Amino acid sequence: MNQDYIQPNEWSILEEGFDVERVKSSESLFSIGNGVMGQRANFEENYSGPSFQGSYIGGVYYPDKTKVGWWKNGYPEYFAKVLNAPNWIGINVFVNDEALDLFTCKKVEDFKRELNMKEGFHRRSFVATLPNDIEISVKATRFLSIIEDELGAIDFEIEVLNSDAEIRFEPYLDGGITNTDANWEERFWKTLEVKSEDDKGFVLSKTLKTEFHVNTYMQSEVLLNGQKQDVDFTETKTEDKLTFSYSIKAEKGQKVSLRKYAGYVTDMNHKRADLVDAASKILDYATKAGFSKLLQEQKEAWEKIWEMADITIEGDVKAQQGIRFNIFQLNQTYLGKDERLNIGPKGFTGEKYGGSTYWDTEAYCIPFYMATKDQQVARNLLTYRYNHLDKAIENAEKLGFTNGAALYPMVTMNGEESHNEWEITFEEIHRNGAMVYAIYNYVRYTGDFDYIPEKGLEVMIAIARFWQQRVNFSEQKNKYVMLGVTGPNEYENNVHNNWYTNYLAKWCIEYCLETIEKVKDAYAEDYKRVMGKTRLNEGEMARWREVAENMYFPYSEKHEVFLQQDGFLDKEIVPIAELDKSQRPINQKWSWDRILRSCYIKQADVLQGFYFFEDHFSKKELEKHFDYYEPITVHESSLSPCVHSIQAALLGRTKQAYEFYLRTSRLDLDDYNKEVEQGCHITSMAGTWMSIVEGFGGMRVKEDQLSFNPTIPEDWKTYSFKVNFRDQILKVKVSADKTVFLLEGDNAIEINVNGKSVEVQPNQELAI
Amino acid sequence: MNQDYIQPNEWSILEEGFDVERVKSSESLFSIGNGVMGQRANFEENYSGPSFQGSYIGGVYYPDKTKVGWWKNGYPEYFAKVLNAPNWIGINVFVNDEALDLFTCKKVEDFKRELNMKEGFHRRSFVATLPNDIEISVKATRFLSIIEDELGAIDFEIEVLNSDAEIRFEPYLDGGITNTDANWEERFWKTLEVKSEDDKGFVLSKTLKTEFHVNTYMQSEVLLNGQKQDVDFTETKTEDKLTFSYSIKAEKGQKVSLRKYAGYVTDMNHKRADLVDAASKILDYATKAGFSKLLQEQKEAWEKIWEMADITIEGDVKAQQGIRFNIFQLNQTYLGKDERLNIGPKGFTGEKYGGSTYWDTEAYCIPFYMATKDQQVARNLLTYRYNHLDKAIENAEKLGFTNGAALYPMVTMNGEESHNEWEITFEEIHRNGAMVYAIYNYVRYTGDFDYIPEKGLEVMIAIARFWQQRVNFSEQKNKYVMLGVTGPNEYENNVHNNWYTNYLAKWCIEYCLETIEKVKDAYAEDYKRVMGKTRLNEGEMARWREVAENMYFPYSEKHEVFLQQDGFLDKEIVPIAELDKSQRPINQKWSWDRILRSCYIKQADVLQGFYFFEDHFSKKELEKHFDYYEPITVHESSLSPCVHSIQAALLGRTKQAYEFYLRTSRLDLDDYNKEVEQGCHITSMAGTWMSIVEGFGGMRVKEDQLSFNPTIPEDWKTYSFKVNFRDQILKVKVSADKTVFLLEGDNAIEINVNGKSVEVQPNQELAI
Repeated sequence: MNQDYIQPNEWSILEEGFDVERVKSSESLFSIGNGVMGQRANFEENYSGPSFQGSYIGGVYYPDKTKVGWWKNGYPEYFAKVLNAPNWIGINVFVNDEALDLFTCKKVEDFKRELNMKEGFHRRSFVATLPNDIEISVKATRFLSIIEDELGAIDFEIEVLNSDAEIRFEPYLDGGITNTDANWEERFWKTLEVKSEDDKGFVLSKTLKTEFHVNTYMQSEVLLNGQKQDVDFTETKTEDKLTFSYSIKAEKGQKVSLRKYAGYVTDMNHKRADLVDAASKILDYATKAGFSKLLQEQKEAWEKIWEMADITIEGDVKAQQGIRFNIFQLNQTYLGKDERLNIGPKGFTGEKYGGSTYWDTEAYCIPFYMATKDQQVARNLLTYRYNHLDKAIENAEKLGFTNGAALYPMVTMNGEESHNEWEITFEEIHRNGAMVYAIYNYVRYTGDFDYIPEKGLEVMIAIARFWQQRVNFSEQKNKYVMLGVTGPNEYENNVHNNWYTNYLAKWCIEYCLETIEKVKDAYAEDYKRVMGKTRLNEGEMARWREVAENMYFPYSEKHEVFLQQDGFLDKEIVPIAELDKSQRPINQKWSWDRILRSCYIKQADVLQGFYFFEDHFSKKELEKHFDYYEPITVHESSLSPCVHSIQAALLGRTKQAYEFYLRTSRLDLDDYNKEVEQGCHITSMAGTWMSIVEGFGGMRVKEDQLSFNPTIPEDWKTYSFKVNFRDQILKVKVSADKTVFLLEGDNAIEINVNGKSVEVQPNQELAI
Repeated sequence: MNQDYIQPNEWSILEEGFDVERVKSSESLFSIGNGVMGQRANFEENYSGPSFQGSYIGGVYYPDKTKVGWWKNGYPEYFAKVLNAPNWIGINVFVNDEALDLFTCKKVEDFKRELNMKEGFHRRSFVATLPNDIEISVKATRFLSIIEDELGAIDFEIEVLNSDAEIRFEPYLDGGITNTDANWEERFWKTLEVKSEDDKGFVLSKTLKTEFHVNTYMQSEVLLNGQKQDVDFTETKTEDKLTFSYSIKAEKGQKVSLRKYAGYVTDMNHKRADLVDAASKILDYATKAGFSKLLQEQKEAWEKIWEMADITIEGDVKAQQGIRFNIFQLNQTYLGKDERLNIGPKGFTGEKYGGSTYWDTEAYCIPFYMATKDQQVARNLLTYRYNHLDKAIENAEKLGFTNGAALYPMVTMNGEESHNEWEITFEEIHRNGAMVYAIYNYVRYTGDFDYIPEKGLEVMIAIARFWQQRVNFSEQKNKYVMLGVTGPNEYENNVHNNWYTNYLAKWCIEYCLETIEKVKDAYAEDYKRVMGKTRLNEGEMARWREVAENMYFPYSEKHEVFLQQDGFLDKEIVPIAELDKSQRPINQKWSWDRILRSCYIKQADVLQGFYFFEDHFSKKELEKHFDYYEPITVHESSLSPCVHSIQAALLGRTKQAYEFYLRTSRLDLDDYNKEVEQGCHITSMAGTWMSIVEGFGGMRVKEDQLSFNPTIPEDWKTYSFKVNFRDQILKVKVSADKTVFLLEGDNAIEINVNGKSVEVQPNQELAI
């Protein structure tokens, strides 16, 4: 771990003491979001120290021109940048005309931050001595409503401690923002209008190129000792910015506060002409309800989420805090309401990576959303890809594939590829397999086979076509080979016969063929429609089968393991344990050249295949592969530790599983990869959830039944989780001596525990 | 071939007829240069049609920020852009206030361009009917002096054919220029001052970041029927531009002309404070001498160059024109006077590629300059790299190499790497071997072994160190392997055990070890100095030897050829002849993904090794490899056909050699690669020269002697070339029945012709 300033607490993320060096990291960790918008925990008042400003709107992006040394045909024309959106949290504060700025205060004491995960808000409090020696106590509370998801609210409360003073609040909206990752410091937004109607303020902006129209709005109230005051205000407009100014005299010991209601409405959800009206309505709703009621509603809404999604851990506060942080952030990022949205790798906590959708969603996030939400949410995530099928086919055509073969993008906002490095865009094609795996996984878990004839099959066919065209026959090997790919281990590029990719390709074809048979029998109408649309025929399927049956897999007789790719054994194999710590993380210490040539693996690659297809291999085979690959894996992708945690648990290595678990669950809180400043690793948080449910809990779905194989880390007294399995809630609580199951539903279910079948009756605890 | 509008002519490049579609291509083909500066053949007068403006100053560049999707450690921070420099050729022309603009003229007739290679100038003539119906005949002559190499001169002559008219010439200097390849249309120059002194004009500019200071200057004269006129002028200054305006009345049939003397002086050669004075002096010299005398001097200077460098071909005008075009362009690009300069791949004919120095210089250009210039010129080219050794060591350190190992940059202006794609920068390391090969080649040809103890050895040691560190031991193969490289065939990236690179590495080490022994014996002082400086010891040399002796080379028993790299035989091998023509060139028609997976080879790779080390292999081995690789080679690098031409000639396949020859010598004239618009392929032109001298002439140096093995293409009556061999000139003239040698020198030399030794007496023809 690289930091440990976060205070252990079961329900909150807490920071105590003000440290300029930690501001950017805390801005990431204390981020808030509501699935539709989100923001880093920037200060409301002006802060002149180092800070990384970020406020993001789901789905709003900028297609930044792709520029590379030498253009390569097939490149996407743009890289999708996640956009820092207009600032509505800003409230400049002056005390007797002296600006509050924590970077220049004479003293800052009792500084505390709380991210209250139970109730869904962020609070910051401190006592500051201003340059003019006035001492004030501040408490600023902020949240983004998950009920009215275009709305945010701030309560900024000040008490002057050592004299009477005049407090001036200047709440503002600022459209003149930039991205930290802008190449040429250029702007991506154009402000169209700065407008006010009484004490309501609006900044209308549009993004360049994509032309998203956004109205950023605000309205404020001033309170003295909790009583709303009628305070005059003045307004200042500049090209990009609207500021209201409210002054109020406070006696020593009195509390004054500014409550600001603000947020975004966009033309994704409203007509452009209605953007001011829409905002105005929300403001009327907000001011009528008032801050306290809105916050109360927020708490209740979060209570409902936790009721379903919570995982408890007794006896290990840090582990408890870690898992709740993960669950909280996932829910802040995506609530499954809007099928145009997806789960960005940084959620609403930073700009890095760009785009919103990676294979992370299919490979890592689906299980969490399937088990903790209505199954429609996971279906929406699958549908998102179904809706992008035409673009995936176009994408494959750009690379020279034909006949409706599809290649899903590595990174996307709208279905088009928007990542621009050839070794990723053109080669990291295993992502295509994850699309099919997600369908398989969804149907296995939910039993909703209807999804396949309805939508999934078209995707599966297009992907099978891709694989069949992507391989070629090697006369030398007398097998089909797949040249020039990048596996999940991105510390290798342009390798031949990556085992994971080849295996996935073969499986995709076989699963598709098998599914076609099922659909043919049971969904004649759909079968006809899909076959007509895709013009798939027996001849083509025979070619698929030929490939699947004759796929090449690199294998080492000596080590009795599948090799990650051709030529892997030419490397110098030195376990990570023998590498000096000063060399880690290698992606910060080594040149790319050296990384590529080394044996070190960024994240599960062969083992990712063993995770997906666990039941294709014996435990002994898993053990051999785990022992061969894990010691040379550097886990420098956030997606790595969870897979290893689950596999270690399966191999009965609970202690090792626990170490991986801590690493995944507290990756950001403890900043393992020295980069939390840039944002949190949202998608891997779903992997953390899997580490408990699939890892320690050993939950699997086999033949329409849940099965469990629980273990518990030594330090834990108990842990519990709930899963929504086919519209009934099963609660599982594990302690060292027993596992207790409680079914919230109407129909008894058969489950398998440690290899034995048992029946769980509704609303009746079953201890095993 | 993709175009054939260039008129065949032995000494000139000729175009007839005005075609808007050809303007950009002709701008490249008719480029002029003098080794220090150069320019595309843009029109002097305003032209509103599609055009690619370019004027370049040797050594002046801009370090453009490197931006890639995901930063990789070890990346260079910038990409060196060749800069379009301020425009000094501009002369706007008005006839009765109507602007001359060939794009808007009512009629353009008798349009002719000539690049007179014999005398070193560009001339353009045409008859144009302006929108106001005035008909004028224009003849514009322009050259860049190779004697006074900061000076250029233009004679722009007009005859009004159908009436009297007022002619207004507006010669100007324009510092407000941009690069076509600017990413964000940003400017790379800042104009510091626009200044005039009487009729002398100056625009002082500096490049951003690199701060090259350049004074662009001009002075003009107006003539009527050849007589200098005293014409008043007015001047206009803007922030970036200075325009003088001269008006003169001409009667029908009279000729008026503007002579403009102009050019650049830079702070590479003058103090910044002296830039105006320096320009002023050159202008005084130019106006005093006058256009005709300057042109006369230019002709004489070119005559001297041709005397040494010319190759004649009788019986094939196109071949003759092709080879002279190549020799002319090489001399326009680099004359060897300034050891800070080098031979950019586009010379002064375009912006593409950036940087000035590639491995092209060492692998392709050295032989031409060795044989057609004083041997100091080639020595200067080697010294250029010696002077960059510290930066090459730094470059290797950035990638994690230690102990003084050097990696020369793929692209550079000042010794630093300035190319920014990992698969090239980090992996195309065979370039390092070319540095050593050039030393070997130079010493073999000139006999100047002194260069090695003096400078070359340090370079060789640093490179041997690199190779020894770059390999690793493969337990599986029980050999040293080299993982993750890109060979000369850039249609493969990140391959393992590229045969060419491995072979070169082994040879570099062995040659270095062998040379150290020689130096030790014969240059004790130097030996001591170098060993002290490099701290090389026996232990390290033993490690080198261990690597060289146990290097792995991929080989196919079945095909009896060395394999280009590991796994090559997994590809589908389909000869290019079976590929539909619509698919060519594959770098324009196929995605990068498809190219990488294909078997197609961009340029000689294994065969490059067979070219460098011809005497290590039997002719039969060469034949086997040629027959295996050439049919799958697409020759999409300009550096490809020449090597194949030489090898085909050696194999006695004169017809095939001739086809390759035509392709290399007329690559740009006939635009084989559909890209001549972007500039000419300068460095490959040296390969064209080799195709004749080493190919058809079969010239080699063996044990301090020249040897020849002449053949002649069917269509040719004779061909001849001259080589400067150790300060004596040997002229070789080949016809079908005999080869005639003539030695211009004092000492008889022994040469080998068709395997037999003969003596050539000075100034006495010897026919064989």
